[in-house]
Parts: sequence; structure tokens; C-alpha cells
Amino acid sequence: MNLTVNLERLQANYRIICEQLNGGRAAAVVKADGYGLGCVEVSTALAQQGCRHFFVAQLSEGQLLREALEDVEIHVFNGAMPGTVDDLIEHRLIPALNSLDQIERWAKAAAQRGAELPATIHLDTGMNRTGLGADETAMLIDEPWRLDALNVVHVMSHLGSADVTGSSQPAEQLRRFEACRRQLPMGFASLANSAGIFLDPAYHFDLVRPGVALYGGNPHPDQRNPMQQVVTLTAPILQVRNVAVGDFVGYAATHEVTRPGKVAAIPVGYADGFLRSASNTGIARVGSVQVPIVGRVSMDLITIDVTDVADSELHPGAPVELIGDQVPIDEVARRGGTIPHEMLAALGARYERSYVGRDPSSPTPEQPKTRAARHPSSPRPERPET
Amino acid sequence: MNLTVNLERLQANYRIICEQLNGGRAAAVVKADGYGLGCVEVSTALAQQGCRHFFVAQLSEGQLLREALEDVEIHVFNGAMPGTVDDLIEHRLIPALNSLDQIERWAKAAAQRGAELPATIHLDTGMNRTGLGADETAMLIDEPWRLDALNVVHVMSHLGSADVTGSSQPAEQLRRFEACRRQLPMGFASLANSAGIFLDPAYHFDLVRPGVALYGGNPHPDQRNPMQQVVTLTAPILQVRNVAVGDFVGYAATHEVTRPGKVAAIPVGYADGFLRSASNTGIARVGSVQVPIVGRVSMDLITIDVTDVADSELHPGAPVELIGDQVPIDEVARRGGTIPHEMLAALGARYERSYVGRDPSSPTPEQPKTRAARHPSSPRPERPET
Repeated sequence: MNLTVNLERLQANYRIICEQLNGGRAAAVVKADGYGLGCVEVSTALAQQGCRHFFVAQLSEGQLLREALEDVEIHVFNGAMPGTVDDLIEHRLIPALNSLDQIERWAKAAAQRGAELPATIHLDTGMNRTGLGADETAMLIDEPWRLDALNVVHVMSHLGSADVTGSSQPAEQLRRFEACRRQLPMGFASLANSAGIFLDPAYHFDLVRPGVALYGGNPHPDQRNPMQQVVTLTAPILQVRNVAVGDFVGYAATHEVTRPGKVAAIPVGYADGFLRSASNTGIARVGSVQVPIVGRVSMDLITIDVTDVADSELHPGAPVELIGDQVPIDEVARRGGTIPHEMLAALGARYERSYVGRDPSSPTPEQPKTRAARHPSSPRPERPET
Repeated sequence: MNLTVNLERLQANYRIICEQLNGGRAAAVVKADGYGLGCVEVSTALAQQGCRHFFVAQLSEGQLLREALEDVEIHVFNGAMPGTVDDLIEHRLIPALNSLDQIERWAKAAAQRGAELPATIHLDTGMNRTGLGADETAMLIDEPWRLDALNVVHVMSHLGSADVTGSSQPAEQLRRFEACRRQLPMGFASLANSAGIFLDPAYHFDLVRPGVALYGGNPHPDQRNPMQQVVTLTAPILQVRNVAVGDFVGYAATHEVTRPGKVAAIPVGYADGFLRSASNTGIARVGSVQVPIVGRVSMDLITIDVTDVADSELHPGAPVELIGDQVPIDEVARRGGTIPHEMLAALGARYERSYVGRDPSSPTPEQPKTRAARHPSSPRPERPET
């Protein structure tokens, strides 16, 4: 099985986003190992397009990215958690300060060092997840000395419902963010995630923070997807069998065969991040034929009904497309009852990733085209039989 | 955040399984990196308990395990797929031959080498996933020369519904397996997975193949769990906030606050394998209090309602139990609409795993107690602030 990441299309998606902006800049959200696609590879490709602002969730992700990219801003959403200060400073990472507690910790570190430290201030405007709430924001406005030791390069908030058609939440969050901005006029401002970018220019401010749209996910699932598909997941047929009417397929016998046909087993399962919730609802592509996943997705295997596929396509080793141009990531996610973000991030520990479309004009040295799976159990790729 | 694997309890679970048997042996299913808990660590601990038969899904998993354990049988469920023969032989791996096609490929390799090769024959008895179907099994019985070049050490089938109360499928699979065995009387026989082991001794044969029960999952979810919990997942509080009636929490505003209270954010999300399907349904434990997950699980964060938790437990960095003795893996899975197998396997690429309870009488050299996360973005553990 093979997960192919098309870096040219990733770069094209970045340009599509930049074209939406009127003078503002586009960052890149590359947390969760670049939405499962390789933080360093993805970030390097985007840096080639001029991206200079990167966002990760965890300190450790920032450390890894800093080793790859020396001259970009790296922001860490989790912020200055206890125990992280020294490493944040050492790797020149900018914490999103989510609370007065984090502001105090970061300011204290700056005072101890006798130097201003760069910071993002994260204001919550209605998600009630992370970021300074209205109470803490009011206190910060009243006591601006809390930021004296810091260089606030960026003030951000995050939209909770920008992809929910008809929701009043984005406009309310925008109103609150603008109100705070008037009283905390520091650094550049950002509010928009992927969905916010395509909602309205009012959400753009100085910087937008696309995530899933870069990776091909549709920022507004009920509209045409303006992004290009970035990911292709294929796997070889392990086995094809004949099935008869009344046969059952898979665990708990959830699929009953209703016409004589054929079922193929594919060596991909939920341990690979192919969510079990796609049981009996997902699809795949064999040659030019779309086929249904039948029965439960199991840990290492899925079963597909290949009755309508030509015999010539059904030999062991023949490729099956599980995600790709004909099986878009949004549809895979929707059929599994989730969102492309989760599918991408789950795309497992057991895949070898291949990268195609690396910009030939890249100023960086030639990179290997294949990256080993993250899983430790892949000492080397399986080789074709000779 | 930290995923702790209790190897003593894993070993206790192995002994509990062995006690069910009447002279038969117990193998261990360690595919998917040992159900997400570390194939090598888990297998080494079980080998110390006398386990000599290990099952993985993929060639690459078998290669890794062979490097760690020299003198055990390692079976590969995916079998002799195209392109795998040389590596299987080199690492002394025993393929589960799932089809006449795989038997032919493996026999041809044996003939070319002029030496018998060991093999498992996998008979399908009703799951229609992998394994020789009735048609191929009949052909094999009629043409026993197909196995002439092979040393069949093991004949297996797999139960599809042994954990489904009242299902007639296990008995039907048992009947078919016994019928085949009478005509293919080679090697030792195995049929039972975790659920089959606790179903009835008739399913035990020579070898049983427990998977999820070893790792603490309940083999029969509607009965008392005879296994010990193996996994503990804890994470620190990132931030605590006050929320008011009418506030919303998380993406798409799916949770509305109905009493004044507190919400804590925890830096664990679906990118860590904490499935998004636990949104608004999961639970956690803070101190001695069980608390609900409120709002959507997001990529790197979950939010919990901590209104009923003492303030002394609610500082940033305070531990929250997401899986453990008080939050069993079965309940976590059930609340997420899935099975413990998927939760375990999904327990992500971003955790550091710690191992406790390693048998001090271990004949193997002392092992490090902590293993780095599989994720490449963890150059080193975060250290406590000094």
C-alpha cells in the first residue's frame, strides 16, 4: 500500500488561497505531522511558495520543523505549557499564549533572560476551547503591563463554525475579535481557518491560517471544492474469492451476499487509519469501476465487492484506489461519518509515503522521493518478485 | 501525555488465557505494532511467559519481530503476497497461505530452493475475507500434491462472530473447520480468537490466537471482563476556563452550557488516535471524579466539563485519565461507537509509551523503560520546568 502526496498540488492549493487575499498573507497549519502527510515535506514545499508562517500544536512538532526550516516563524498552538519554556526559546518557537497563566509564565521567562520574547496572544471568541476568555481578555486590557516583557507579534482567534452554512457564530466571533483588536492593537491579526478564508474577506485580517484546504479538503463541504486533491492511497489486492447468495462477509456477518459475485480483500484496515466507521458504507475504485466496501473494516483488512470489475483487473497485487481523484478525501470522510481532517491525520503509522511533484526549481538540495513509513516495523520496502 | 503499558498485567492476561486451555497452547497476535502497544516490547514480555507462536499481519512486522526474537515461530497473516517470498524466507517467517495462488507461489519458492518451506494453511469457514474458500479447499483436498514441497505446520481458520451473543456462526464455522481438518490432517490446528477462547473448549484445538484479550479488552463485551487493564492514557490539563449558561463549546457549537461551570482543554485529539466519534459521548477522570467530554473532539484537543472537580485538581499540568482502571478501554471504545481493538490500534503516533511492570526475573538484558513516540516529531521528551 502506498500513500502518495502530490506536493505540486499542495503548492497550487497554497496559491489558490493566496489569490483569495487582498494584500494579506497566508500561513500554513502543519500540526499533526502536517495533517498526516509529513510536516517537514509539506512545510518545505510551502516555504518554496513563499510561506513564512507555520503553525503546529505541540512543542515537539515545532522542534522538528525548526530543524528543517531555519528562517520561518513557527507558532505553537499549545503555548507555554509548564515545562516547555526552555525548549520553546532554544528552538525560537512562538507560543500561542492561551491564558493569563501562560502569559505570566512566558513573561517571567523573558524577564529572567532580560530580553523580550516573541508571543502570539490567543483570544477565545466563542469556542471555549483554548485562548483567553472574555474575563481574562478584560483583565489583560486593564493591566497591559502583563505584556511588558513580551514582543506580541500576533493576535489570533479561531472560528468554530465557519463551515456550517447559516451559522451566526462566525459573525459573532468576528465582532468580538474586532472589539478586542481595538483595545489590543499589537502585531498582526489572524482569525480565518480554511473555511473562514472562503467565507468572506472580512475574516482575512493580516494573516490567514489554512489547514485542511491545503491538503485538498473542501473548506465548505456543501459547495464545489476549489482545492486540488493532494493525497492518493492505493493498496494491492490480496485475494479475490467467489461468493454465493446467502454468504456473509466479515466480522459479525454484517453483509449478506444477495447475488453471485466476487469479493476482494485488501491489506488495509483501521490500524492503518482507515476508519472502522467506513464499514459497509465506504467505496473504492478498481480500474474504472467504483466498488463498495462490504462488511466490517477490520484491523488489517477491508473487503470490497468486485463483482462488476473485469477479471483482468482482479489478480493478486492489482491496485485498488482507496483515496484519490476518483475517491476524494471528502467523500471518504463523509462516508465514514467524519471529516477529512480526521481521515488525513489518521492515515497511519504503517504507510510508506511517496512524494510526487516536488518543484524542480526548488532551491533546496534534491530530496529522496520516498520516505519510510513512520511505523518502526518497516525496515525496508517490499520488493517486486523477480 | 503518556501512554503507559503494564507488561505485568499483559503477562497476567496471557496466564489467564493459558488457564482456560486443557493442554493446548496459546499464541499471541501482535499485529498492528502489538495493537498499538509496541510489538517488540509486548512480544518480549509474552515470550518470557513461554509464548512461542506469534502472529503479525504484514511482512514488515514479521521482519521487525524477528530481529527481536530469534527462537519463536512468527506467522504472517497476509501470507505469500507477490513480492514477499524472498524476505519471508530470509527472516524465517511462516506465511498464512490464504489461497491456491499463494500456495503455488510458496511451493514454487520451495521447489526452487530444493527445501521444504514451513507454511500455515488458512481455511475460510464463513467470513469470506481471507483464506481458502470452500471451492479452493475442495480442490486442495483433491490435489494434495499442491502441498508436496511444503511443511504444513499449522492449519487455521478465523471466527467472525464469537463475541456476538446468540450467533449461530461460530458453531457453523466449527463444523466446517472440523470437516476440513479430517481431510487435511497436517500440523497443529487453531481456530479461536479472544472471544473463541472464552466461548467453549471445543474451539481451542491445539493452539489459540488471542489478540485483544491480551491487551485488556473484554472478549465478551456483555459479560464481566476476565482480563486486566493493560493501558493507561493520561494527559495534562492545558487550560481551565469559566463558562456561563448559553456558552457553546468546540467546533460547530455542538455543546451548549446549561449551568455555570468550568471547562478544561486537554492536548489530546483525534490526531493522537482519540477518535472524533467520542465527541459529546466520551468520559475522562480527574482526581476521583468522572467527567464528560463536551463538544467535539478536535485534532489536537478535547474539552471536558470539570465543574464538579475540586479546584486543587484543576491547575495547568494536572493529570487527566483518559484510559485506565477507572476508564476501561472497552468503555472508551463503546462510547466512541467502536471496539477496543480500534481504540488500541489508533493510540497514535504522537505518544511516548512507558512500560511498567517488566518482569524483574527477565532473562533478557535490562531494557529502557521509556520508548520514544513513533511520531518523528518527538526529538525528546518535554522536561519539567525547573
